Amino acid sequence: MTTTPELGLPMPVPAAEGLPTRVRIHEVGARDGLQNEKATVPTETKAEFIHRLAAAGLTIIEATSFVHPKWVPQLADAERLFPLVRDAAPHLPVLVPNERGLDRALSLGATRIAVFASATESFAKANLNRTVDEALAMFEPVVTRAKAQDAHVRGYLSMCFGDPWEGPVPLPQVVRVCRALLDMGCDELSLGDTIGVATPGHVQALLTALNDEGVPTPSLGVHFHDTYGQALSNTLAALQHGVTTVDASAGGLGGCPYAKSATGNLATEDLVWMLTGLGIDTGVDLGLLTATSVWMAGQLGRPSPSRTVRALSHKE
Amino acid sequence: MTTTPELGLPMPVPAAEGLPTRVRIHEVGARDGLQNEKATVPTETKAEFIHRLAAAGLTIIEATSFVHPKWVPQLADAERLFPLVRDAAPHLPVLVPNERGLDRALSLGATRIAVFASATESFAKANLNRTVDEALAMFEPVVTRAKAQDAHVRGYLSMCFGDPWEGPVPLPQVVRVCRALLDMGCDELSLGDTIGVATPGHVQALLTALNDEGVPTPSLGVHFHDTYGQALSNTLAALQHGVTTVDASAGGLGGCPYAKSATGNLATEDLVWMLTGLGIDTGVDLGLLTATSVWMAGQLGRPSPSRTVRALSHKE
Repeated sequence: MTTTPELGLPMPVPAAEGLPTRVRIHEVGARDGLQNEKATVPTETKAEFIHRLAAAGLTIIEATSFVHPKWVPQLADAERLFPLVRDAAPHLPVLVPNERGLDRALSLGATRIAVFASATESFAKANLNRTVDEALAMFEPVVTRAKAQDAHVRGYLSMCFGDPWEGPVPLPQVVRVCRALLDMGCDELSLGDTIGVATPGHVQALLTALNDEGVPTPSLGVHFHDTYGQALSNTLAALQHGVTTVDASAGGLGGCPYAKSATGNLATEDLVWMLTGLGIDTGVDLGLLTATSVWMAGQLGRPSPSRTVRALSHKE
Repeated sequence: MTTTPELGLPMPVPAAEGLPTRVRIHEVGARDGLQNEKATVPTETKAEFIHRLAAAGLTIIEATSFVHPKWVPQLADAERLFPLVRDAAPHLPVLVPNERGLDRALSLGATRIAVFASATESFAKANLNRTVDEALAMFEPVVTRAKAQDAHVRGYLSMCFGDPWEGPVPLPQVVRVCRALLDMGCDELSLGDTIGVATPGHVQALLTALNDEGVPTPSLGVHFHDTYGQALSNTLAALQHGVTTVDASAGGLGGCPYAKSATGNLATEDLVWMLTGLGIDTGVDLGLLTATSVWMAGQLGRPSPSRTVRALSHKE
């Protein structure tokens, strides 16, 4: 990464034994971060956001979602947006809920898609109006057809730790759905702590349970929310377990509408700060990324919840 | 701790190997948290705050500071406050900068005192108008006399990781001042990341460097600031190293005036959330503590920066 001492970057110390030397950040700000915004963000603003994220060094930038516009009005411009950003970054995954969404994504040249499952019945019902197994059945042909087109497929799994209706989620329940997503052909999973209740021991217990059932760590990414301020320590626990794919949202944009709090996704800047200090390569220029989040906060009309963004942008 | 499932506490998982089973929280909200408040907080409000913190299960509550009122006007009521709270909790340490402060504290029955040193020349000059060694010389008779009175003595050490003027702080420089504070009789040290720039590898490197020079882990506490969102993951790294004393501030009150950000001390609630999830006993009732921070935020007229406080107080 570019060294920008005037930003007060942390002093890098060689990574402790057992930590990865490189982490792939899966940037979700443009999709997960924006999808719950009430006011419509112009397509051109989204495109500029994605181009700026790429210029800051992010290589996996989730661009949009090909769900029915009725469900996520903010992302109704997917058809118009995707061609504007298709060449912005090496990897531009898009969310697809079903075969119709897959057709739309593939027809525009998408090469990475993601499906969105739930570990709990309550959230499957609330989010997809299906049982967990009905949702898996809906995704199966999507994954099969995407793989037949050589697309990379990510499986999101929500509510891997706690569920607002069901409380703590039993590990075997999470393992079962992970197994099903991998068996149908997903290349990678993203374990979501949708309401932000996880803690480091819980994270390591889930990862161990998955390994014990034959799910290899390289197929696992983590997606933590900062609702209770736990996202970064949970990430550290996952890194210590060997995880090398971490989801984060520039400026901490977004969150789960079911978690009653202003705070949501782990901020990419807070993550990059920690990784830089740990001597872990991310390829991200923290100065450019922070400037991007400050600019986006201006577009949205409210300050970024990222502590790193706030601290760096308050520097004299 | 009292279980309050309606608060959505994290699912406790047995502590990972190598983590302590119990952590002592050194609560600094009433002193460090309030000392930079511009508007005067009434003495009775401070006393109620401390009594409520004790009722929530905190046992070490730093009460006030016997510095000259000119330097910290907010704590000018130390003489009036201390007698109101002296029996509130098992341990009520107070800050004393010099022999005059020690005399004032001891005359009121204080049995735990703390001195406040710096690892860097720049901060020693800015905060104490002395060199590092001049400050140590000032503290020596304070510590000697306090120990002669059987008082417990804590040595705070600021700027252990980075300094706003000097940048990254070399480990040997920190080790030297720690050694000096212990040699003069301090029972415990608090390693401060005053500007919040530390990361987990840096934390473990400093702790290892201290151990290598004969400073035992049980004599070390950690004091992290959340300026860049790193406080809790740094705490996790310290726990993994064996540290069992952690400083935190109820509601995340306070911070360093030299760090340009709204965020400061690690919030006690965010810490308790993580520790509870790790199965580590703290003796704290998170519901009572959160209610206390919500009440205190009301007294100060602005919301708590603690994510856990915000999330729990937004619950329906």
